[in-house]
Amino acid sequence: MADPIIQRLEAIIAERRNASPDSSYVAKLTARGRSRIAQKIGEEGVETVIAAMRDDGPGVISESADLVFHLLVLFADMGLSWDQVTAELDAREGTSGIAEKASRPKE
Amino acid sequence: MADPIIQRLEAIIAERRNASPDSSYVAKLTARGRSRIAQKIGEEGVETVIAAMRDDGPGVISESADLVFHLLVLFADMGLSWDQVTAELDAREGTSGIAEKASRPKE
Amino acid sequence: MADPIIQRLEAIIAERRNASPDSSYVAKLTARGRSRIAQKIGEEGVETVIAAMRDDGPGVISESADLVFHLLVLFADMGLSWDQVTAELDAREGTSGIAEKASRPKE
Amino acid sequence: MADPIIQRLEAIIAERRNASPDSSYVAKLTARGRSRIAQKIGEEGVETVIAAMRDDGPGVISESADLVFHLLVLFADMGLSWDQVTAELDAREGTSGIAEKASRPKE
Repeated sequence: MADPIIQRLEAIIAERRNASPDSSYVAKLTARGRSRIAQKIGEEGVETVIAAMRDDGPGVISESADLVFHLLVLFADMGLSWDQVTAELDAREGTSGIAEKASRPKE
Repeated sequence: MADPIIQRLEAIIAERRNASPDSSYVAKLTARGRSRIAQKIGEEGVETVIAAMRDDGPGVISESADLVFHLLVLFADMGLSWDQVTAELDAREGTSGIAEKASRPKE
Repeated sequence: MADPIIQRLEAIIAERRNASPDSSYVAKLTARGRSRIAQKIGEEGVETVIAAMRDDGPGVISESADLVFHLLVLFADMGLSWDQVTAELDAREGTSGIAEKASRPKE
Repeated sequence: MADPIIQRLEAIIAERRNASPDSSYVAKLTARGRSRIAQKIGEEGVETVIAAMRDDGPGVISESADLVFHLLVLFADMGLSWDQVTAELDAREGTSGIAEKASRPKE
């Protein structure tokens, strides 16, 4: 049901976590710990913001792909999955108009 | 082929952009301009980082959902689509090991 | 020796931390915990980035002031002081050219 | 009146902007443009957030020093100065209690 590309990427990341840090970026990043994974997410978020401000469409797509990739690395590190994100979006999505905002937990 | 939830959300956002800012969060955010949409992405990125550092799984899912939601609002504002993100991930994904990193444009 | 305005602000923040959260923003923010203080720093950083991209000088000054203010709130929460930041900058500053970068711990 | 270390750093940065990008980090960063300077500010903000969440005092000081350094590089690029930040803080500082927040422009 989920996007097959995302699912395949989750499988690849799960496998690479156990590879040697010398041969895999995912293994290397994971070995450096949660702080480093979180840092990458923050950095990709900032780069997406800057590409958006530059009105740079290909840049926004590229930085968003980096962001999603590192979110998946974080999810693997925390035992989470992308399906939980889309399920959360689905749960919120039924609402309409301004109500949609009220339904989001933290704003 | 893409995730049906994401696709539906893209359709909802496209529709709400044209709604009254008084009745729709998407319309209101869009009316405030690119800077404000970009700011939300940066903020949700920061909140995802903090939830990750707190080892707060439900928080990471909730903040990631907020992040994806606001990315979709940005994409609508720039004429982009989520399919372009997954296509970019797919194009990179074939590589293996450390090569995967080299294939990403900006690191 | 330190900037007298920053020093006065540190004293004010130290005092307000003990005030009622109903009457003081500093007390309220501090009561919400480290995550909330950190979140504000991340948000002000993002807003400074956006003002910079807009080439908005007064915005950059205003957001930088917000950023410094929330750094001081964090320092108070961690038993740190602004003098330690300027001492760190002073220790690095003697170097010249490209060497200055090598002397910074984490890049 | 301003912190002498900050003032000296502003002078050093002003001078290095005109140096060769091969010999100076400031010159190199400046040559890469506003987006790259802004990116560094966003990144140092994220790293300060992470050090705060780790309760890492020396890390917070080190990342805050990086953040201030890159703010000064941005200010030089925009014709701004640190004095304007402290003047802004001074202008806000007279207020007390919850009023302090109301006096800040954007929250």
